[in-house]
Amino acid sequence: MSIQEISSFAAGEWVAPGEGARNIASAITGEVIATAGNSALDVQGMLDHARTVGGSALRKLTFHDRARMIKALAAHLGQHKQALYDLSFETGATQADHLIDIDGGIGTLFVFASKGRREMPDGHVYLDGDVEQLSRNGSFLGQHICTPLQGVAVHINAFNFPVWGMLEKLAPTLLAGVPAIVKPATNTSYVTELAVRIMLESGILPDGALQLVSGGLGDMLDRLNCQDVVSFTGSADTAFKLRSAPHILENSVRFVAEQDSLNASILGPDAEPGTPEFDLFVKEVQREMTAKAGQKCTAIRRIIAPENQVQAVIEALSARLSKTVIGDPRRETTRMGALVSEGQKRDVLEKAAILGQEAERVFGDPDNFEVDGADGGKGAFLPPMLFHCADPDAAQRVHDTEAFGPVSTVMGYRDLDHAVELANRGQGSLVASVITHDPQVARQVALGAGAFHGRLYFNNRDSIKESTGHGSPLPHMVHGGPGRAGGGEELGGVRGVKHYMQRTAIQGSPDILTAIGNQWVPGATEIEAPAHPFTRRFGELRIGETLRTEPRTVTLEDIEHFASFTGDTFYAHMDQEAAERNPFFPGRVAHGYLLLSFAAGLFVEPNEGPVLANTGLDGLRFMKPVSAGDSIKVRLTVKKKTPRNEEYGEVRWHVTVTNQEEEQVAEYELLTMNAY
Amino acid sequence: MSIQEISSFAAGEWVAPGEGARNIASAITGEVIATAGNSALDVQGMLDHARTVGGSALRKLTFHDRARMIKALAAHLGQHKQALYDLSFETGATQADHLIDIDGGIGTLFVFASKGRREMPDGHVYLDGDVEQLSRNGSFLGQHICTPLQGVAVHINAFNFPVWGMLEKLAPTLLAGVPAIVKPATNTSYVTELAVRIMLESGILPDGALQLVSGGLGDMLDRLNCQDVVSFTGSADTAFKLRSAPHILENSVRFVAEQDSLNASILGPDAEPGTPEFDLFVKEVQREMTAKAGQKCTAIRRIIAPENQVQAVIEALSARLSKTVIGDPRRETTRMGALVSEGQKRDVLEKAAILGQEAERVFGDPDNFEVDGADGGKGAFLPPMLFHCADPDAAQRVHDTEAFGPVSTVMGYRDLDHAVELANRGQGSLVASVITHDPQVARQVALGAGAFHGRLYFNNRDSIKESTGHGSPLPHMVHGGPGRAGGGEELGGVRGVKHYMQRTAIQGSPDILTAIGNQWVPGATEIEAPAHPFTRRFGELRIGETLRTEPRTVTLEDIEHFASFTGDTFYAHMDQEAAERNPFFPGRVAHGYLLLSFAAGLFVEPNEGPVLANTGLDGLRFMKPVSAGDSIKVRLTVKKKTPRNEEYGEVRWHVTVTNQEEEQVAEYELLTMNAY
Repeated sequence: MSIQEISSFAAGEWVAPGEGARNIASAITGEVIATAGNSALDVQGMLDHARTVGGSALRKLTFHDRARMIKALAAHLGQHKQALYDLSFETGATQADHLIDIDGGIGTLFVFASKGRREMPDGHVYLDGDVEQLSRNGSFLGQHICTPLQGVAVHINAFNFPVWGMLEKLAPTLLAGVPAIVKPATNTSYVTELAVRIMLESGILPDGALQLVSGGLGDMLDRLNCQDVVSFTGSADTAFKLRSAPHILENSVRFVAEQDSLNASILGPDAEPGTPEFDLFVKEVQREMTAKAGQKCTAIRRIIAPENQVQAVIEALSARLSKTVIGDPRRETTRMGALVSEGQKRDVLEKAAILGQEAERVFGDPDNFEVDGADGGKGAFLPPMLFHCADPDAAQRVHDTEAFGPVSTVMGYRDLDHAVELANRGQGSLVASVITHDPQVARQVALGAGAFHGRLYFNNRDSIKESTGHGSPLPHMVHGGPGRAGGGEELGGVRGVKHYMQRTAIQGSPDILTAIGNQWVPGATEIEAPAHPFTRRFGELRIGETLRTEPRTVTLEDIEHFASFTGDTFYAHMDQEAAERNPFFPGRVAHGYLLLSFAAGLFVEPNEGPVLANTGLDGLRFMKPVSAGDSIKVRLTVKKKTPRNEEYGEVRWHVTVTNQEEEQVAEYELLTMNAY
Repeated sequence: MSIQEISSFAAGEWVAPGEGARNIASAITGEVIATAGNSALDVQGMLDHARTVGGSALRKLTFHDRARMIKALAAHLGQHKQALYDLSFETGATQADHLIDIDGGIGTLFVFASKGRREMPDGHVYLDGDVEQLSRNGSFLGQHICTPLQGVAVHINAFNFPVWGMLEKLAPTLLAGVPAIVKPATNTSYVTELAVRIMLESGILPDGALQLVSGGLGDMLDRLNCQDVVSFTGSADTAFKLRSAPHILENSVRFVAEQDSLNASILGPDAEPGTPEFDLFVKEVQREMTAKAGQKCTAIRRIIAPENQVQAVIEALSARLSKTVIGDPRRETTRMGALVSEGQKRDVLEKAAILGQEAERVFGDPDNFEVDGADGGKGAFLPPMLFHCADPDAAQRVHDTEAFGPVSTVMGYRDLDHAVELANRGQGSLVASVITHDPQVARQVALGAGAFHGRLYFNNRDSIKESTGHGSPLPHMVHGGPGRAGGGEELGGVRGVKHYMQRTAIQGSPDILTAIGNQWVPGATEIEAPAHPFTRRFGELRIGETLRTEPRTVTLEDIEHFASFTGDTFYAHMDQEAAERNPFFPGRVAHGYLLLSFAAGLFVEPNEGPVLANTGLDGLRFMKPVSAGDSIKVRLTVKKKTPRNEEYGEVRWHVTVTNQEEEQVAEYELLTMNAY
């Protein structure tokens, strides 16, 4: 195999490593396969290019535009994933590991693309929460918005997931409208570089949206400001060094960190041997220990079982681990490949030795294990190693020492409070899991351990078939944890996008808020429609376009007729004396659904037209009862427009129903699909 | 006046300053009025007390319990505010300033109490966002929750708002369920101490919920962990010193900072002299310059006006400022009191001299101004000082030097983009305001400057009567800003409460999520009701209690009858051919409101009972059309229960309507009020 030069992509040009490049060895053979470095890199030029060229181009797009771009990127990567698989074996990863890294990364792009279309507007301003009523008469209101940061996101990634690690940060960054500079860990940067090449060659991304650094960042972090974000995944030591730089602190540069984590898995007190949960627990722990050869930030490092089940867990787990075929990851029979490097292997052995001070190794001997189809002396192979800590209360190292490989420690708990206490001894972790079929066990752990963990994963016989795994961060759910885990948060759908946007409180009149949010706010100007709004196509309707209907009187006959027709003979509509006893009603009142139905009768345009369907209704509140003899009328205003596909879009109408005294009797938002 | 000893309140005891106490002088007379310090303080004892005694007690309460506690605290403080007013004059503040500090602080408590009741559950787990569908069949789902941190909040406050500054941090902290240790700025700590005494003497707070430090914090910050929060307001220098401590960084201790800010106010291009907006602008700037003698983190430091209006602004503003009566804050005629101390006055003069290097002083002479009813030589009095910077592009100091007193600088802009650019030169600020009647000007500033500001305040003739002021942080809206402003965020309703909670992603089966969130999740166990649920009182109903109705067939006659009765003759219900052309429908279909009405007819229990009213409906989605001949039936399940007052509570029901093929045709959440 020829030695590949891993280049940087800076300001639109590929830049070769140049002098002082660092060698990268194959995890399997130990031979040098690539070099990385950047002696000729113009760091300021990269930042300027991202900020001026990339950022401006991305901010011109709407959230939906960017979501479509991300979807196209995912589809394009999907077409080229075989090349990524082929190259990734050199990192020691098996095909099953590739599915996590490569397919998992592409899947993350797809989820963000989908969430961008469904949960964000086809505009430039994301509205965070509802309008706040800051004044009695509603002439001065509040609304929170998010707009893209005007700087650059510097992504510093770990070696273990060269593709997913990049894409899980890139998806929310691009969706926010912020350009990225990606700095992969050197050890596996050749895989990241290929993925970047594939993305750039697609032509899908605007110039400046994505740049790549091979080797170190130089003084890039000292050139960041309040519009930039550093998003870091890696060791606590490196995180500490980077985030404590005076420039970062003085300028409040956002720094999102995801670092060491002593994740725990708790076997529920109900999950005794013989239950589906016990088997599930053993299987899940074994998988987390061996997937990616244990080089996962979410891997289970601490196995917390009832004291009287510890022996059973060790036995069942040892039996399962003994079947783990270690060897050349290209072989289909291999279940665990190599660690990423000889250095990583050494580090794991050092940490395992530290654990050995407090725990006994009960499975796996690093000096004596079989390697299938590869030279165990040259590749960075290790067997799974299981420890048992007999006194986890007195122990400290098992709770704070992360051996970043196929290493885990079993410890016993006396009762559930003790299990929670042990889990929390990690002082903040990414994830803890609980295998239990008892919802009250789950609740007790959630209340006791929630504050120490970024994610709590529960599994049992009910969810086993569809569960996604203790160790898998999902794009829908936040990934990150307090304390030792870095205190950062990534993913979690739109929550992850907000890390690359600024939240701003907006205060002003209804017209001002309407213009900024591109969403009609009650009290803002009503635009008179040139025709009935139901006769106007999606593209013709303007935000604020309003229809006010004629009134209709509600009679006692109407109420009685509606009751007998629908079967809704609730006493408040039918029984004058009972209704009078009710604290909300003056006497018999009209059905809420009668009002809704009459309202529709008042505003609907019956003829075939661009309104295709009433698809739903939100936030209906009945504010004042309507008695027989009252008359109601409707105001219908275009609040928001969201394109849905090539043929039609969703119109959200703000509707109020008022009585003859101009008092609001009901308020709601109506959803229709309208043809373009 | 006797010299008051300002004590700490530690682990349930008042502790006098002891040796080495620092003197505090009156802002008006310069005489020593108090001493502060804590030579005998047991810092670790305070932390232990908060964590074990205070935290446990607070976490036992529900969000509603804590909201009621905060409301009671606010009411109690309200009864004692005269004592706080009386003492606060010594800080140099006028009665108008007291209203901001004392009444503003109490009002903040009331708003959080109200939001806690209305926007948070009567339980221990706050649900953050909707359930995430992580699996095809719904047996494995996601949900984000927030639970209280299990540590302590250390509040480090600034001198300018000794009451509001404490309460705006305390309200969200207590609502979250976290105990606080308050460290006020020494200069005005005598006011804070009185407020703390009033609160403690009320007996409303559980033991350990609130402690006070007089003087410095010692090594308290070096003893914090991942369950603690530091919330800091003050200078950038101090913030940098505290947040860069290795212990804080290594343990990812949350650090919320609100520091220096060069807030701007922009006069819109439309707001020419003679418009209501021009007058409003001048009035608002004058108020922000002189309220609290300009010692407000949100005060307007940079006045950005169209170049051709700069002279008019200077003239109008100078005319207004010249009427500012400076003097003894106890006098009713006084408009501006003293700065907090001689040291603060010196600092402002030093900073004003720096501004003088780039800007010309056009109003106010610190060596020549009148002081009414006090000795200008002894008190820390200063006049308002207005500067004019002729070349704001070349200038740097006017954009980065905060003279924390009655000082502001006028500068001209060429066009709106230039105004945005100048506003953003502050490199992150708490608030910028724009006085404009043009919504498009507002939108352009929001898009261009939003990412640099924590708050954007718009005002004009429409909102002037109800507007709350450029400089007033509101409990509903976030307060904080990026970059120079510290990168922190406070307040903003529930957002502010979340700073004292941990967000955790929960994954599991519907039953697990239901138990944790105390809110029924679709797919979870349905509890068979022992009687029709409408006959069961609020307290009797259990989460998950379910009614399944008999089916009802929808006929063409029903559809035609409903159309003629309500007037809703939309073509999809009436015209077979037009309906067939519609992409959503197979032909004529039933009205959505007909389905809703029939559904109610199926599930309603007609007799007088504990259900008092149907108050609303949320998230209605029509998922599949219903044609004549189809039959529908309803599942109604108790999703969530929220007590509202002494007599009744709100029940949120999850409702699905299915057809004869068991396909969902509609889904929604129904709200009723039920008697206890």
